[in-house]
Amino acid sequence: MTTAEATPPSQRTRVRRLAQLGHFDRATLYAIVDAAYVCHVAFADDHGVHCMPTACWREGDHLYIHGSNGSRMLKLAASGAQVCVTITHLDGLVLARSAFNHSMNYRSAVIYGMFEVVRDADKAAALDTFMERIAPKRSREVRPGDPNELAATTVLRISFDEAASKISTGGPKDDEADMALPVWAGVLPLALQPQMPVVDAAPTGTPDYVQQWQDAASARTLVEVTS
Amino acid sequence: MTTAEATPPSQRTRVRRLAQLGHFDRATLYAIVDAAYVCHVAFADDHGVHCMPTACWREGDHLYIHGSNGSRMLKLAASGAQVCVTITHLDGLVLARSAFNHSMNYRSAVIYGMFEVVRDADKAAALDTFMERIAPKRSREVRPGDPNELAATTVLRISFDEAASKISTGGPKDDEADMALPVWAGVLPLALQPQMPVVDAAPTGTPDYVQQWQDAASARTLVEVTS
Repeated sequence: MTTAEATPPSQRTRVRRLAQLGHFDRATLYAIVDAAYVCHVAFADDHGVHCMPTACWREGDHLYIHGSNGSRMLKLAASGAQVCVTITHLDGLVLARSAFNHSMNYRSAVIYGMFEVVRDADKAAALDTFMERIAPKRSREVRPGDPNELAATTVLRISFDEAASKISTGGPKDDEADMALPVWAGVLPLALQPQMPVVDAAPTGTPDYVQQWQDAASARTLVEVTS
Repeated sequence: MTTAEATPPSQRTRVRRLAQLGHFDRATLYAIVDAAYVCHVAFADDHGVHCMPTACWREGDHLYIHGSNGSRMLKLAASGAQVCVTITHLDGLVLARSAFNHSMNYRSAVIYGMFEVVRDADKAAALDTFMERIAPKRSREVRPGDPNELAATTVLRISFDEAASKISTGGPKDDEADMALPVWAGVLPLALQPQMPVVDAAPTGTPDYVQQWQDAASARTLVEVTS
């Protein structure tokens, strides 16, 4: 990483706990974002602080979310409220020789700032990008959103200008004095993996993205699917 | 569900979008919480709203988190700040015949309120409960926390008095007019699954919980591990 990349873009994005796990380069951030289907959006209103999960995708230098115009979260976010968007991948449970040194492996990204409303003229393209990211070519197969459906949908985006990544990986870090203890030590890895597709209708056979999902479910890897 | 269980405990826990997916009974809530290793905690301070992932576990009617005394989040939460704790399990991508009707299957829980500090006298037992939940009997195998380690650790808990669950499941819900469209429709399921354990040291062989994890990784199911 260059010095610039190693520097938090703001006070809020300074990694405070285990700072050595912090990353501030775009490549690391985008890899974490692109592996996610869902983010958590924190915002505040008169009732207090809220934390809501929602689908997300990246296009260029922005993270996108969408939903019904009636969504409280989207209305607030669209009004320029300050938000914190967090993406977390849990990669494993790290079992150390001492209780205190147990930990988890994870990749997380935190994005601060304000969402901006995607203009009506750009909405359909943004939503197509989301579908293409999930299922390549599918945006040309399904019935596209009609004017009413698009009008009922809000699409928001937030820049990555104020973002930080944090990654914990590897095995247990035990105290020297504990290394000889007769206890199992290692990692119990976890991964979000595709399961066998559940077909509702396949009038034109199995599209590539479904076959790929099925293959990944069989191969027990998400690599092709999420990258 | 009884009428009481079908009623949100507060204004904040009213499920606003797709209210029919909301649940307010403890059995549903606890099943979602007990399947999680990690939650997202939203809180606010002078720098704005924050959303941080952290390990969690349930004991009785409380959700527990822990960490270093130095953690900003834990210090704030321990001071009685209002928080929103959210747990989300992504279960699949729902591909409908129209772009607009695409959705995701998920199980989520949102808990509002304030954390309370777990007394020093109860800390070790609470942390043992967490380890037992992840690896039964392991709390008797590892070196327990010494007084300094326990003193450096904050354990907090929050009641489920102001909580709501939301579950989306099943296949695509398409408009009647779209049912005949020649497009693949169905669900691409996802599951957080155990992968093969990575052994750092096994001086006394393979404990049952590691063997169970390995079996689950082979069997490609989390059932035994998370229930």
